[in-house]
Amino acid sequence: MTDLKNDLLIRALLKKPIERTPVWMMRQAGRYLPEYRQVREQAGSFLNLCTNPELACEVTLQPLRRYQFDAAILFSDILTIPDAMGLGLYFTEGEGPKFKSPIKTVADINALPIPDPNIELKYVTDSVSLIRKSLEGSVPLIGFSGSPWTLATYMVEGGSSKSFQKVKGLMFEQPSIMHVLLDKIAQSVALYLNAQIAAGAQVVMLFDTWGGMLSTEDYRDFSLYYAKQINSILNKGPNGEKIPSILFTKGGGLWLEAMADSGYDALGLDWQTDLHNARIRVGDKVALQGNMDPVTLYANPDVITEKVKVVLEKYGQGSGHVFNLGHGILPDINPDHVKAMVDAVHTFSPTFNCTSLDLI
Amino acid sequence: MTDLKNDLLIRALLKKPIERTPVWMMRQAGRYLPEYRQVREQAGSFLNLCTNPELACEVTLQPLRRYQFDAAILFSDILTIPDAMGLGLYFTEGEGPKFKSPIKTVADINALPIPDPNIELKYVTDSVSLIRKSLEGSVPLIGFSGSPWTLATYMVEGGSSKSFQKVKGLMFEQPSIMHVLLDKIAQSVALYLNAQIAAGAQVVMLFDTWGGMLSTEDYRDFSLYYAKQINSILNKGPNGEKIPSILFTKGGGLWLEAMADSGYDALGLDWQTDLHNARIRVGDKVALQGNMDPVTLYANPDVITEKVKVVLEKYGQGSGHVFNLGHGILPDINPDHVKAMVDAVHTFSPTFNCTSLDLI
Repeated sequence: MTDLKNDLLIRALLKKPIERTPVWMMRQAGRYLPEYRQVREQAGSFLNLCTNPELACEVTLQPLRRYQFDAAILFSDILTIPDAMGLGLYFTEGEGPKFKSPIKTVADINALPIPDPNIELKYVTDSVSLIRKSLEGSVPLIGFSGSPWTLATYMVEGGSSKSFQKVKGLMFEQPSIMHVLLDKIAQSVALYLNAQIAAGAQVVMLFDTWGGMLSTEDYRDFSLYYAKQINSILNKGPNGEKIPSILFTKGGGLWLEAMADSGYDALGLDWQTDLHNARIRVGDKVALQGNMDPVTLYANPDVITEKVKVVLEKYGQGSGHVFNLGHGILPDINPDHVKAMVDAVHTFSPTFNCTSLDLI
Repeated sequence: MTDLKNDLLIRALLKKPIERTPVWMMRQAGRYLPEYRQVREQAGSFLNLCTNPELACEVTLQPLRRYQFDAAILFSDILTIPDAMGLGLYFTEGEGPKFKSPIKTVADINALPIPDPNIELKYVTDSVSLIRKSLEGSVPLIGFSGSPWTLATYMVEGGSSKSFQKVKGLMFEQPSIMHVLLDKIAQSVALYLNAQIAAGAQVVMLFDTWGGMLSTEDYRDFSLYYAKQINSILNKGPNGEKIPSILFTKGGGLWLEAMADSGYDALGLDWQTDLHNARIRVGDKVALQGNMDPVTLYANPDVITEKVKVVLEKYGQGSGHVFNLGHGILPDINPDHVKAMVDAVHTFSPTFNCTSLDLI
């Protein structure tokens, strides 16, 4: 299918036979690694790190030098699109991302441009090309974007939020205007993911971090609807190969049936969702990625090993599972504990992936 | 059944016929009301307000003077039990509750006393008696407690938490010690709720604010197990009357079937959970309370009215529904908007509660 030396992730996402469960970790290039913190310091700021392809490539590759991960994921931020739309992304210590010019009026929404990813987001496609080249086919590269709903929350709130008062206010009081905004973001996300695919991303993932803050109907109409729209216009790879897509809605465990019908190849699961039950609910429609509680990694390696086994047993026999945490790794985890997790997946998952039942 | 002039809440919780859906609101005595802020200032601190029965009674009654609510809920804090255990509850501006002496060792857990609610928590039972007397049978009084798991999170973390690292660390690495802690808290909660019942509480509610941060299995073993144990030893009222019990796990929508089997008369639902679907899942086992998105109350009254109708329609015909928000009211809501919500329930719910289908 590709020149990949390790295409376990691709096969698992497409539910083709695998000999072992692939494993990677959300935020695997991150603060828990001392070598990451060093490059981050060298870059001067988080944004400098994201916008410099050489440095972004370096931190993307760091976890692969330490651990036997089966995928690299582009080092970037979910808020690159609103920044490219002109909202002025910046970061404040301890308060997370902010925008200099958040969306305040209908006129702001009407004036929003749809960024050309090959111009305004060239630093991202350059990073993708460079990482893909540097990987030399060792493992697949995952590209990603924030979901339209999740991006809209930051764009309207002006940063992180607890209650989502402003963006929900817009949604409740002026739903048609909210749809104009989400449609523009969805178009931008589709162009952005397709540019990442053209530049070399071999899998794409949509992060719907805040979809779980919506009611069931609002999730369907204001988040999943646009996720679906994006997936329907994703391109194939440069050689005509299928690019598997993953949809992750944190807090979306209630809505797996609807998500499984959205056209994505796989669903990311948070740790609250029972993986065994999730597999029954989605049937053969999608692969599942997840879902160990990220806090497990504070525990000692023996406990981590046991918890990895529980996740593997929950999914059970056969392809269609990608091991991951249920959310990003926390910044103060001991790197040795990550090794315990990865090693446990390598050691114990082959028994769940026998092609012949005689081997069990 | 009682000398209550309005027993709609009791009847709805027990799924007996009602002529209109009862309505109350989590945190209905609170900062959104100017008269509350005045008493709070007079008290000097939030804790002074909780521990002074006259002032606690006053703020409990305030929302009933403004709105046609069908219940009063004891004004108190969920952390009274750990405080009575000697952990030293205090509040810091903007950072929420903290403990001077959080649980740090196994010895701390072994040394924890089980408070006598009629001694260490007498200010609460005094408040309950006074409120009950002051209500003069107008509406029922709801007593409450935090759930063992939720109390344990604060006791081990020393305050609020985002990742629950310490308490989950204890749970993952020393589950049997965690069970000792939860068992002590559960015994304390049961005594506390029974003391509230003896003092006049006519309904009791268990707030499991952080149960939704657990995996499915951990929720079952470390939260629901103790909620169930508490419910099984709740007493009847002083005249032998059944005291309906409500279990609210925020983020618990995935686990409604298990919760419906836990012996509680009703489940509180957060706004993410679809009420129509929830009713199908729990069948006749429990009543349901909820579940409008609290952020809806920022919207204009026309939107609020429409959203109330949606919730009523979602539940559909018949008894077993108590209208509420999916979580507590936010502190900066316009009090007029609460009126719009309550009025809409009064206006539109009778059509869903006809005893004869001919009347629809």
